[in-house]
Amino acid sequence: MRLIQIKRGYDFHCHLRTGRELNSVVAFTVQQFNGAVVMPNTSPPILTALDVSRYKKEILDRTSFFEPLMTIQINEKTTPEIVEEAKRVGAVAGKVYPKGVTTNSQNGVTDFRAIYPALEKMQKLGMLLLLHGEDPWEKITCLDREKVFLPTLYGIVNDFPKLKIVLEHITTEAAVNFIQSLPNNVAATITPHHLVLTIDDVIGNFIKPHNFCKPIAKMPADRAALLKAATSGNPKFFFGSDSAPHVKERKECSCGCAGVFNAPIAIPLLTQIFEEQGALKRLEDFVTNFGIRFYNLQYEAIDALVLAKEDWVVPLQYNGIVPFMAGQTLHWKIGYAYQKIGT
Amino acid sequence: MRLIQIKRGYDFHCHLRTGRELNSVVAFTVQQFNGAVVMPNTSPPILTALDVSRYKKEILDRTSFFEPLMTIQINEKTTPEIVEEAKRVGAVAGKVYPKGVTTNSQNGVTDFRAIYPALEKMQKLGMLLLLHGEDPWEKITCLDREKVFLPTLYGIVNDFPKLKIVLEHITTEAAVNFIQSLPNNVAATITPHHLVLTIDDVIGNFIKPHNFCKPIAKMPADRAALLKAATSGNPKFFFGSDSAPHVKERKECSCGCAGVFNAPIAIPLLTQIFEEQGALKRLEDFVTNFGIRFYNLQYEAIDALVLAKEDWVVPLQYNGIVPFMAGQTLHWKIGYAYQKIGT
Repeated sequence: MRLIQIKRGYDFHCHLRTGRELNSVVAFTVQQFNGAVVMPNTSPPILTALDVSRYKKEILDRTSFFEPLMTIQINEKTTPEIVEEAKRVGAVAGKVYPKGVTTNSQNGVTDFRAIYPALEKMQKLGMLLLLHGEDPWEKITCLDREKVFLPTLYGIVNDFPKLKIVLEHITTEAAVNFIQSLPNNVAATITPHHLVLTIDDVIGNFIKPHNFCKPIAKMPADRAALLKAATSGNPKFFFGSDSAPHVKERKECSCGCAGVFNAPIAIPLLTQIFEEQGALKRLEDFVTNFGIRFYNLQYEAIDALVLAKEDWVVPLQYNGIVPFMAGQTLHWKIGYAYQKIGT
Repeated sequence: MRLIQIKRGYDFHCHLRTGRELNSVVAFTVQQFNGAVVMPNTSPPILTALDVSRYKKEILDRTSFFEPLMTIQINEKTTPEIVEEAKRVGAVAGKVYPKGVTTNSQNGVTDFRAIYPALEKMQKLGMLLLLHGEDPWEKITCLDREKVFLPTLYGIVNDFPKLKIVLEHITTEAAVNFIQSLPNNVAATITPHHLVLTIDDVIGNFIKPHNFCKPIAKMPADRAALLKAATSGNPKFFFGSDSAPHVKERKECSCGCAGVFNAPIAIPLLTQIFEEQGALKRLEDFVTNFGIRFYNLQYEAIDALVLAKEDWVVPLQYNGIVPFMAGQTLHWKIGYAYQKIGT
């Protein structure tokens, strides 16, 4: 059987949820990663240093040898003092949601100028700015929200030349091209599902709520641009799963939530994609090295993730949550979660 | 209370289904219409004169004072003889589905040239050609399928100058403009739901399977063009509900079917829309007169449909089927189903 190994790194964009949901999903991330950048749009959201500390403890209580890289949600009420306190208790980044753009973002930003004091402080402290890059203006349809957001990103990049910025889960050729044109303090994450899906996988022949996410999957040309960016070896593009679980009943209903639960298959799927693209040798860079470098993490790669070339069928459910590609066959499988490199 | 009355006419595009489903839905159409153009993509489909006769009897057995205008599905296997026999037992039109483009269309057309003998016969017999105008070619996303089909329509129009053609359930500004440019033997139906929905009502903030239909609802500019066409008084645009019921379980699932069940609210909703557009005086033309003229129906308008201006909330289900706008308030209500005009 063919085996490959890559460094066991980080998921640079992950929704771990809280309480029972956290219990249901965290093990899938722990299996494949040393740690994860944990999104703050929980319910209630992570808005203060106290929230960060509590949430970090909640995650650590359910894991071992796992490093949650905490984030704080930045909105118009976030003072520089709040940012500083959050940093002190371990927050590595601030996440900005435009108001109403996705799950639990009702408290998001309307006026980006109003968060400039917080961004100023983040820049000074070396914290990253993570952006959900969609403009929720009602006259823009879901298909154009990302493209329309790019000028807002440009304004922030110009005003904060030393702030490290990640445009999260990009979905369009326009975003790929734009990120490439910006200085090296600006990068983007790409999800596994946006390398697979187009709009037709959501509403083509049937309507498929488990492929529904924000930003929505776009056109074939957009997917092609994402595939090219992810496998190009350009360090501005790196992995973040945006794994966003919702129980089946909140997806398969009259008004379903956005989010793809890809945590159980993230690395096997990426391995398959990179193999298909003839880019297996760049898998580790995309999944691990580029993100570690951008986040400037102190990381000793002592663990390896071993992948075996072996077909398996993705289960229809895990703990009441339907995973991405449920019922479909993947060609790579996690062989051993832990193995010392070199042994 | 304000009352208006319009002639009780026809639904020029309706899926009545068969068996138990027919039992569940036919009364909603009967309540508002003297008759309906009944689509042939049942399971099994209506492919022969015998199918037409049986299906017509099945409908008539469940209704009284209701005129089903029968159709036959035209595909590569439909001979001119089949067309002629279908006409003899009462089929008024032939419906063409491109292969795989919607519910029960696996037996649809791939090569339009192959159905030319059938179209020739239909032209000769004065039968209408009803087109599901989407190109299912896999490289075209669902958003562009209608636009890409327009050249195919143009070819048929050129080759059959006396064939009456209806481009069904149009959804784009491109289709509106194209239909306007064609001779008067070509018309289009417009559904109530495409006058209401855009893509954001399907996959904007949430995923809403009960707003999912073929063709998919498009952009705000497309909806605006449809509203303008429907209320313009141009007889090339007339009403067809495309009411397409599926039980709740086939909509709210991991792989939901296309179709909006609007039969229970079609006329009240259209009345509301035409009132909002300041076009109430053109409602009857759009709903009834233009279609009757295009189909050249022998029709004596003895019945009126009375509508009362009264708020009501659309029920969440009818017989296990979720109707369009379930739970929402409409401002017009069917007052009396039958009333002699002038009494």
